[in-house]
Amino acid sequence: MKRLFLVASLLTLAMAASAQQALGPGTGIVSPEINPDNTVTFRYHNPKAKVVQVTGDFLPSRPIEVDINGQKMVYNAPGVADLQEGPGGVWTYTSAPLTGELYSYSFLVDGHREMDPSNVHQNRDVATWTNIFTLSARPGDAGWYYEVHNVPHGSVSHVWYDSPTLNSQRRMTVYTPAGYESGNQHYPVLYLLHGSGGDEDAWADLGRTAQIMDNLIAEGKAKPMIVVMPNGVWFNQAAPGAAVNNFQPTMANSRSQSTKEIEDSFPDVMNFVEKHYRVAKGYSNTAVAGLSMGGRQSCMLSLHYPDTFGYVGLFSGVGAIEGNEEGFAKVFAYEPKLYWIACGKADGVMVNAKRLKEWLDFQGFKAEMYESEGGHIWRNWRVYLTMFAQRLFKQQPKAPKPVRMSSANNGDVDF
Amino acid sequence: MKRLFLVASLLTLAMAASAQQALGPGTGIVSPEINPDNTVTFRYHNPKAKVVQVTGDFLPSRPIEVDINGQKMVYNAPGVADLQEGPGGVWTYTSAPLTGELYSYSFLVDGHREMDPSNVHQNRDVATWTNIFTLSARPGDAGWYYEVHNVPHGSVSHVWYDSPTLNSQRRMTVYTPAGYESGNQHYPVLYLLHGSGGDEDAWADLGRTAQIMDNLIAEGKAKPMIVVMPNGVWFNQAAPGAAVNNFQPTMANSRSQSTKEIEDSFPDVMNFVEKHYRVAKGYSNTAVAGLSMGGRQSCMLSLHYPDTFGYVGLFSGVGAIEGNEEGFAKVFAYEPKLYWIACGKADGVMVNAKRLKEWLDFQGFKAEMYESEGGHIWRNWRVYLTMFAQRLFKQQPKAPKPVRMSSANNGDVDF
Repeated sequence: MKRLFLVASLLTLAMAASAQQALGPGTGIVSPEINPDNTVTFRYHNPKAKVVQVTGDFLPSRPIEVDINGQKMVYNAPGVADLQEGPGGVWTYTSAPLTGELYSYSFLVDGHREMDPSNVHQNRDVATWTNIFTLSARPGDAGWYYEVHNVPHGSVSHVWYDSPTLNSQRRMTVYTPAGYESGNQHYPVLYLLHGSGGDEDAWADLGRTAQIMDNLIAEGKAKPMIVVMPNGVWFNQAAPGAAVNNFQPTMANSRSQSTKEIEDSFPDVMNFVEKHYRVAKGYSNTAVAGLSMGGRQSCMLSLHYPDTFGYVGLFSGVGAIEGNEEGFAKVFAYEPKLYWIACGKADGVMVNAKRLKEWLDFQGFKAEMYESEGGHIWRNWRVYLTMFAQRLFKQQPKAPKPVRMSSANNGDVDF
Repeated sequence: MKRLFLVASLLTLAMAASAQQALGPGTGIVSPEINPDNTVTFRYHNPKAKVVQVTGDFLPSRPIEVDINGQKMVYNAPGVADLQEGPGGVWTYTSAPLTGELYSYSFLVDGHREMDPSNVHQNRDVATWTNIFTLSARPGDAGWYYEVHNVPHGSVSHVWYDSPTLNSQRRMTVYTPAGYESGNQHYPVLYLLHGSGGDEDAWADLGRTAQIMDNLIAEGKAKPMIVVMPNGVWFNQAAPGAAVNNFQPTMANSRSQSTKEIEDSFPDVMNFVEKHYRVAKGYSNTAVAGLSMGGRQSCMLSLHYPDTFGYVGLFSGVGAIEGNEEGFAKVFAYEPKLYWIACGKADGVMVNAKRLKEWLDFQGFKAEMYESEGGHIWRNWRVYLTMFAQRLFKQQPKAPKPVRMSSANNGDVDF
């Protein structure tokens, strides 16, 4: 008993003391609170504030037309709603009922952007942190796939590889499905590329890749696969805090151009993955997809290595037609099982995505187009991944007709 | 040329569009800026603010005495400094020259805590986010070990394991040293435990474990080793966002007690690690250390498994003497190569740490004590890890004298 008391005392002391770990205390306020009717209540304590608002993608967006070098595009600005001040300087706002999704928001306090101090859940997008919450209105909706359920979980690893082409060590994030560590099976690989402001953490953090894959695989809707998310910006070796230059993120076009293109350096990625993971190699077992800049990169990679990727996904980003006519002919000569273009109706990229799809149709090349609502946003890219992943590695593409093939299916895969 | 133009146009479009990824724009302000004389300038834009301050552990702390259940302890509150308003509503403050460290800070805007919107580098400690920056005043100082240098990098993996004892899937973070993926070597293991408000991400994020290990190993100051950082709070299976309950973090004592202690569930951790990693097993190759609650847990684990851990590190947390006298006698009968107690002079745990050290001395048990400045803070725990890791696995402890041994060194290790 005496021992127990002393242990308890020490524990109390240690814990009281470790409260110092944080610079500030908890707020004692619950925000956001997801209500039984799928409305969401936001709360914020500040007796001195005059106007408190919430802005986020759970509110109806306000389309704004912008002109970039003579090209008009629609920018969907997030909506804004007012919180009402209540007793004790606690401001509140309750949303309309929401559909299952992962939502981002921030407060505007007298016009000044602030994080929600009561919500520990945050995501970084390029250089901006926002609060997030996930809502699952019913099983199987989009938000449900982004949440963690009691299903077998895969691993997420941050791994360094050598890129002789870019003359640097670089980092990639690798999802291996549940059971990978225990077994001997070889798995097909999806290479999943981020946008121009992203890094190797983007798909795992903002994209909820591990949760989507865990849930789809557990339901039998996707084949177990390895998902490789390399850093695709040549001048960044890794995400902020993990890189030598400890960089502040910027968009990829704000720095000088490299003489190396993605097609030059990507073999370094694939060589590392195929050497260090139990990979089912070959056209039928290899997919590439990406968002925005990563969509363009995926297009370019399939053009340069037409016998490598049996599945191609272009999310809100495509390559040019002009100059690549013969390249596309080669790509489709292999009869990829899926060449999937996805874009939002309010996305400035849509005009070029549609143009590519129409040109492919005219050539008789079998591609699919998925048009979603909304613009150039993560909300769409998570949905695209959820849809695309379910189509992968389920059927063997036809044997390729022309030119030589890369290493064939090694027969290790059970489908 | 036409193709190049079109590709460039698409790229521009895609990037302009992907700026929408973020809810807010960049600030265009550099903060913090580390100056050549190791002073640091903080900048913050807000023309409406009346008082802007910065608070953080780079400022001299203000000791405050608090009374917890009749026990007095010193709480070192971070210092506060005023920013001065300049043209355009940009507030600035420049610190005194700083020593190499990882520092945390926040702004206080009219008394209201805010993040630095210009600094993408943040850490979460329990439920509180703060901005951070790393300063390396000269090679080899503390801050230097927390930065990423051009040395071989190990991998950091978030891995799920099954705990039959706690009847749940749980997550651990595993550091494997550079070269692990390519080779066949077996490595010794340091089990590294977090505090009562932490989770499996704490040592990797706040503790900079991967950077410390990469740099120490590259310098030849530490042996290549695997570092296993499990979630040590029985009711949390994983960090926020990775767990089924999607929890808001709390301190471990704010929930009901489990009937299971760390010594009950820890074999689940070790069984998983020894099964799935190339582990050099046995007393000489196994270390346990932790901070605060994790220090107490490390103490308890060595008491319950005296033949398992050849190296024990108690950082700002110890177990009770009373009731464990015979247990300690068994621990030291094995003659651990290192039994290391570290604590800050301003830490409330110090009185019990000293008491344990004196009792061990009186019994003739060979332990070491390291007293640092400061209190119960991450700044100390990073330093303790940097010191402790250099002492590990360098010499074989003497053959154990009493009782049976667990599996002996399997001879796979090259020292």
